[in-house]
Amino acid sequence: MASEKSSSDLTLLDFWVSPFGQRVRIALAEKSLPYEYVEEDLLAGKSDRLLQSNPVHKKIPVLLHGGKPVNESLIIVQYLDEAFPDTPSLLPADPYARAQARFWADYVDKKVYDCGSRLWKLKGEPQAQARAEMLEILKTLETELGDKEFFGGEHGFGFVDAAFAPFTPWFMSYEKYGEFKVAEVAPKIAAWAERVGKRESVAKSLYSPDKVYDHIGVLKKKYGIE
Amino acid sequence: MASEKSSSDLTLLDFWVSPFGQRVRIALAEKSLPYEYVEEDLLAGKSDRLLQSNPVHKKIPVLLHGGKPVNESLIIVQYLDEAFPDTPSLLPADPYARAQARFWADYVDKKVYDCGSRLWKLKGEPQAQARAEMLEILKTLETELGDKEFFGGEHGFGFVDAAFAPFTPWFMSYEKYGEFKVAEVAPKIAAWAERVGKRESVAKSLYSPDKVYDHIGVLKKKYGIE
Repeated sequence: MASEKSSSDLTLLDFWVSPFGQRVRIALAEKSLPYEYVEEDLLAGKSDRLLQSNPVHKKIPVLLHGGKPVNESLIIVQYLDEAFPDTPSLLPADPYARAQARFWADYVDKKVYDCGSRLWKLKGEPQAQARAEMLEILKTLETELGDKEFFGGEHGFGFVDAAFAPFTPWFMSYEKYGEFKVAEVAPKIAAWAERVGKRESVAKSLYSPDKVYDHIGVLKKKYGIE
Repeated sequence: MASEKSSSDLTLLDFWVSPFGQRVRIALAEKSLPYEYVEEDLLAGKSDRLLQSNPVHKKIPVLLHGGKPVNESLIIVQYLDEAFPDTPSLLPADPYARAQARFWADYVDKKVYDCGSRLWKLKGEPQAQARAEMLEILKTLETELGDKEFFGGEHGFGFVDAAFAPFTPWFMSYEKYGEFKVAEVAPKIAAWAERVGKRESVAKSLYSPDKVYDHIGVLKKKYGIE
């Protein structure tokens, strides 16, 4: 396991377009922590290393720290805050603000990817239901963001921003399949998406809306969806 | 809102049999924090106070601290650790151990209640699938527990114990509907369940397996399930 000891002891098993993996990449960039990136070709299969590192969920991202695995993206980001306390923290210091940040990151975690997938996987009434849900999700997040620059508020770019930012390149696909415009439904979220997209940690971790759209096309073919 | 200021500034909106609410009750008991308990009669409806305190999910438990709401059971327990740092912590101190505890509490959170509900709600093949899943969940948790007294290991009774203990009175119902025995499938989990059941914080927060079974009967009637 010598490779894991290189430069920083940190290795990330990830898949390029995964919004969950990208959260971890954003956190590592915010903290200026060097790491070895290992691409898992999930469309081809799962590596033995992934299966051994996350035998329960068998999912990326996995962060290996000195060879020891940490799983689940939001748990990894919190781990990075706690294991590297001298780096900029994604969670704020105040206990109540931390609980609120955890709540909204959890909300994004439970809602956005699942609902977004139903937009491009489904047709007819089930898709219309997913569309209504996505509008509701965006409006709920719009209300929470309000006039703040970032979800982190006074803390600045933080835990919820890192959790939600990876979905911004998916907005174009959600808009195409759901036939709506984020800028019309949730203009503050649209403006926030532009702002976070310019942040270095985010810009270097994400891919373009076109690449995401193409990837969804590949998934549709793989799953035999018209 | 004068009542929230009584004794400790802590108020819990809860429903007696909720395993999620019980996690918070266990944490409050472990920390010897006094609080006002407010029963929400969920079978009759949701109070304005609940709807205003948790407008996003509209769910108990809600912890009000000085009138400010904290939602989602595992987030509340972490909040209590962080807002009352002089009380016994449910999470361990070591960053890696904390990440592992969060991982397993999250596993319990995502798997047990949902799978258990399918055991009593469904019949035939979907129920058989829920049964197979429940056996898998119990075996996975059995492996994680191993020969430790508590999931918290060296830390003692901890975050995962508080997250999972409220499901132990549900085991009898899972066994009846799923036609299996926890003691046969996962004997270490069965022994752990007995151990945690004797702990004061747990004993005073939970109800008997018979009461849980009766409650499931009430739910089945409410939902028109034979």
